[in-house]
Amino acid sequence: MKILVANLGSTSFKYRLFKFGAGEETLLAKGGYERVEDHGAVIEDCLKVLQEQGHLDSVEDLDAVGFKTVLGKNLSGCVEADDKVLEALAGFEAIAPAHNPAYANGIRQFARVMPGVTRVALFETAFYQWMSEAACRYAVPESWYELGVRRYGFHGASHKFVAERSAQLLGRDDVAEKVQRLYQKGDTAVERPLRIISCHLGGSSSITGICNGVAIGSSMGFSPQGGLPQNNRVGDLDSMAVPYMAKVGGLSIDEIERQMTKEGGLLGLSGVSNDLRDLIEAADDGNQRARLAIDVLIHSIRQWAGGFFWQMGGIDAIAFTGGIGENNAALRAAVCAGLEPFGLKIDPAANDSLKGEGNISVPGSSIPALVIPANEELVVAREVHRFMEARLTPAS
Amino acid sequence: MKILVANLGSTSFKYRLFKFGAGEETLLAKGGYERVEDHGAVIEDCLKVLQEQGHLDSVEDLDAVGFKTVLGKNLSGCVEADDKVLEALAGFEAIAPAHNPAYANGIRQFARVMPGVTRVALFETAFYQWMSEAACRYAVPESWYELGVRRYGFHGASHKFVAERSAQLLGRDDVAEKVQRLYQKGDTAVERPLRIISCHLGGSSSITGICNGVAIGSSMGFSPQGGLPQNNRVGDLDSMAVPYMAKVGGLSIDEIERQMTKEGGLLGLSGVSNDLRDLIEAADDGNQRARLAIDVLIHSIRQWAGGFFWQMGGIDAIAFTGGIGENNAALRAAVCAGLEPFGLKIDPAANDSLKGEGNISVPGSSIPALVIPANEELVVAREVHRFMEARLTPAS
Repeated sequence: MKILVANLGSTSFKYRLFKFGAGEETLLAKGGYERVEDHGAVIEDCLKVLQEQGHLDSVEDLDAVGFKTVLGKNLSGCVEADDKVLEALAGFEAIAPAHNPAYANGIRQFARVMPGVTRVALFETAFYQWMSEAACRYAVPESWYELGVRRYGFHGASHKFVAERSAQLLGRDDVAEKVQRLYQKGDTAVERPLRIISCHLGGSSSITGICNGVAIGSSMGFSPQGGLPQNNRVGDLDSMAVPYMAKVGGLSIDEIERQMTKEGGLLGLSGVSNDLRDLIEAADDGNQRARLAIDVLIHSIRQWAGGFFWQMGGIDAIAFTGGIGENNAALRAAVCAGLEPFGLKIDPAANDSLKGEGNISVPGSSIPALVIPANEELVVAREVHRFMEARLTPAS
Repeated sequence: MKILVANLGSTSFKYRLFKFGAGEETLLAKGGYERVEDHGAVIEDCLKVLQEQGHLDSVEDLDAVGFKTVLGKNLSGCVEADDKVLEALAGFEAIAPAHNPAYANGIRQFARVMPGVTRVALFETAFYQWMSEAACRYAVPESWYELGVRRYGFHGASHKFVAERSAQLLGRDDVAEKVQRLYQKGDTAVERPLRIISCHLGGSSSITGICNGVAIGSSMGFSPQGGLPQNNRVGDLDSMAVPYMAKVGGLSIDEIERQMTKEGGLLGLSGVSNDLRDLIEAADDGNQRARLAIDVLIHSIRQWAGGFFWQMGGIDAIAFTGGIGENNAALRAAVCAGLEPFGLKIDPAANDSLKGEGNISVPGSSIPALVIPANEELVVAREVHRFMEARLTPAS
């Protein structure tokens, strides 16, 4: 089965083509286009290139195209990208203005260029479908809730992969298998509890509490804006700050939104860069604001990690993924510092020297700390593969 | 020493008169006025009544008037309520519109009616003066920070009293004495660590992490709006929800602010009442939204408690105060549920039967759970008394 994963921006299109066989996953090809004006034309070109390179015999040789959509109004999961998906994306354009219109347009173009190929949308909110009502709600008027103001949670593809892979590394195949079939079979029972804190730290960052393979909460809420400070985005902020900046700061709502999403986060705190690597370099050179930005990120990660620790009555492991989570040993150590009495003991040598996947805690720690590199396109392709398989072999 | 504590609303004035002697604190009188149009007139009347009742020989018999001010721009602590305080209150009128103008007016009227009596302002933010920079900052643009958008923390008088009293109950007089003199002597060393989670739960609610007698963080942030759901106030909310409700909901900023502060919180969630007692009754009668409101409150308390647990690397006690914290045994049990493996074990009989102050955990629990009733006016009077004593006997 051949699956194309399409990554769509307003002026970009990137793709990866995967082949799934018996126990086999192969990346056949990848590529992309920038400064795109006509997404239909580049999709046609991509198809031509893949045929010229010999990866596809014809368009019929492609089984499905997968889209990592962000969030839709009244719709989530891993579902066929049909008119209902387009409607759901349009319904929440205001929350994800950078993503939803780009994906809606891309899905339409794929439907036009290759109408016979199944299109599958994997929503970033899908992993959070089983959160308790108490974890989903803000204390807003009912009319706000009816308009969609609730916690959704994001980075679902990544955190779900951590749920699966951490379970495998901890010898809990029952949980790993449950997670693999979660979008097909739902929240089924496991042998005994498994509680994970998953830290996806990168250009955008979030923490998810995972109990028995299912998300119980996310640091991101209504929008991908909430929770940890992001590269340019503000993260958690007292809601009264927005009216205050309108009244006292004299800013329009559009300008407030622009500043919160473009000039906040690590960039706003540091005044230096939105990239943690630059901040570390600047902090090492004595830049106090860069140091502060790093400290605020660590503080915020610890606050959210602790929240899920308490919600779950303790944890069985903590896991790091994403560009920062996979590569920044000092940050991982700072997040875990002080929790040694509870069995979370980082091994400095293992932590500093690790490349790729591994356990960075002292042998015998009762709370292992894991690093789990994610290949997000592959994760999306696998979900699309599972969707297609379930569709081909419907449950009796 | 006789100290009057003045509680000022826009159309109300309540007072309590305390007498401090050698090891003695006495409430001499209390009273109040509603539907006040002229605060000067009722202050004059109050003074007359206190003389007629024999509590004051003359106005000169009163040593100080204390005001529990909420927050001021670029000013905090327990300080003389002079022009600088009035300026600081005016600077943050937009954040605390219900409180700051009322206190500024009250302070002015006291100055006019009894110019010879010292006026002392105890800011609700005072207890948070020693928070780390990382705990104070939102990831906003620097221009927002310069306008005052940062975490302040509130309910300081109450949480500080919990810091003092919990230390006494835990046999840590060194910490209790440090807390008593905190606003005079600052953050001094203690014999060994003492880490407390203080839950002030009432009409408005907040959680404070307290390490060695000093606050390390608060669930309330820039405004008393943040953190836990309040009676009518929203608590934590994704900052993008405000622009969304402006654009998609079609609400003005003023209307959004009104709904967040008047129609959110437990009232917004339940649609029933802003009073937890009503919600419990309704939930017992099968009202699902009332049940949800209670669940969201518990979930939010647990999330914040866990955050401070992780920040401090564990805790030595958890303490409950405020109308809900002192009287709602079921909620206390729900907040602590599941933490038994860490030594936080509630004794159901002790929890259910407690009246007033006490320990509600199983004997020998390594994390005692305490209930500490607060008398906020007395707490304010004590701080004013300490301020006056330090002033009369300056440090060498």
